[in-house]
Formats: sequence, structure tokens, C-alpha cells
Amino acid sequence: MEWLVKINIQLKESILDPQGQAVQAGLNALGYNNVSDLNVGKYMELKITDLTDKEQVKEQVDEMCRRLLANPVIEDYRFNIEEMA
Amino acid sequence: MEWLVKINIQLKESILDPQGQAVQAGLNALGYNNVSDLNVGKYMELKITDLTDKEQVKEQVDEMCRRLLANPVIEDYRFNIEEMA
Repeated sequence: MEWLVKINIQLKESILDPQGQAVQAGLNALGYNNVSDLNVGKYMELKITDLTDKEQVKEQVDEMCRRLLANPVIEDYRFNIEEMA
Repeated sequence: MEWLVKINIQLKESILDPQGQAVQAGLNALGYNNVSDLNVGKYMELKITDLTDKEQVKEQVDEMCRRLLANPVIEDYRFNIEEMA
């Protein structure tokens, strides 16, 4: 069975996001003055094979996020798992 | 009216993704050998105010993506618009 996993990783709210501020300043400079609260994060898509149980996939993805993909000290992550045909 | 916009930006499929390859190699090196097809992209969240019509919000976000947020030559983007309470 094949699983498609989509992961969003964002800085925690209390952490300063200079990249987001820069992008927002860029938008404002282009005249988009109604834009605010812009945050920039990472998005990952990956495939997982060889697991039959969605719970196991969830456990593995959570572990991968904690060990490598995200920095749990400053980042929050959330993910979504879809079964592929 | 306030709108929450979530934007995912990813490299087009035909474009080499060295960052994705590096992350996948990292996962494989940690023993996650059932992971494949990993792509890394950007995720942005922002708020838009002063528009009452969702179509207008959609037009503005599309324009912002083309002008600043994404590079349409090598990247695809998609977004989701939610009305905020």
C-alpha cells in the first residue's frame, strides 16, 4: 500500500519570522496594503510504502518530523495522510 | 471582512529538487527506507482585509503569486481561501 503524506512546517507563533516580514514588506511595497500576518513555512510531500495501517504511517511521519524534518523547539508541524490508488 | 489565505508553492515536476533529494537521503540514512518522491516547497499563510467578495480575494492572491510569491517559470502554486469570523 502506498501513502501520500503532505507536511506543513511553520515557526511557532512566538518566534520572530524575518522572512515572512520581508515578503509582507515586498507585497506592501507593490501596493497590496490589505495584506497582514504573513508567515512563511515549509511544505513537503513524500510517499511511504510497505505499511498497511494508517496508524503506523502516522507514527512514522510524526517520528520523522521530530527527528529530522522539523525543529520542535521553534517549529510546529502538521500533516495529512492519503491512501494512494 | 477578513480572509485567511494558505498558499503552497512547489517546484514543477520537471525541475530538479536538490533540497528534496537531500532531505530524502537524510531520512533514508536514519533508516526510513520506505520513503520516496520527497519534494520540498514553501508554505505561506496571510490575512487579507478590505475585500467583500471571495472572487476578488482569489484574483488578488493569484496576482501576488505571479508577481512576487512564486516564480511561475519553475514553480507551481495553489491556494485556499477561508473566510474568518
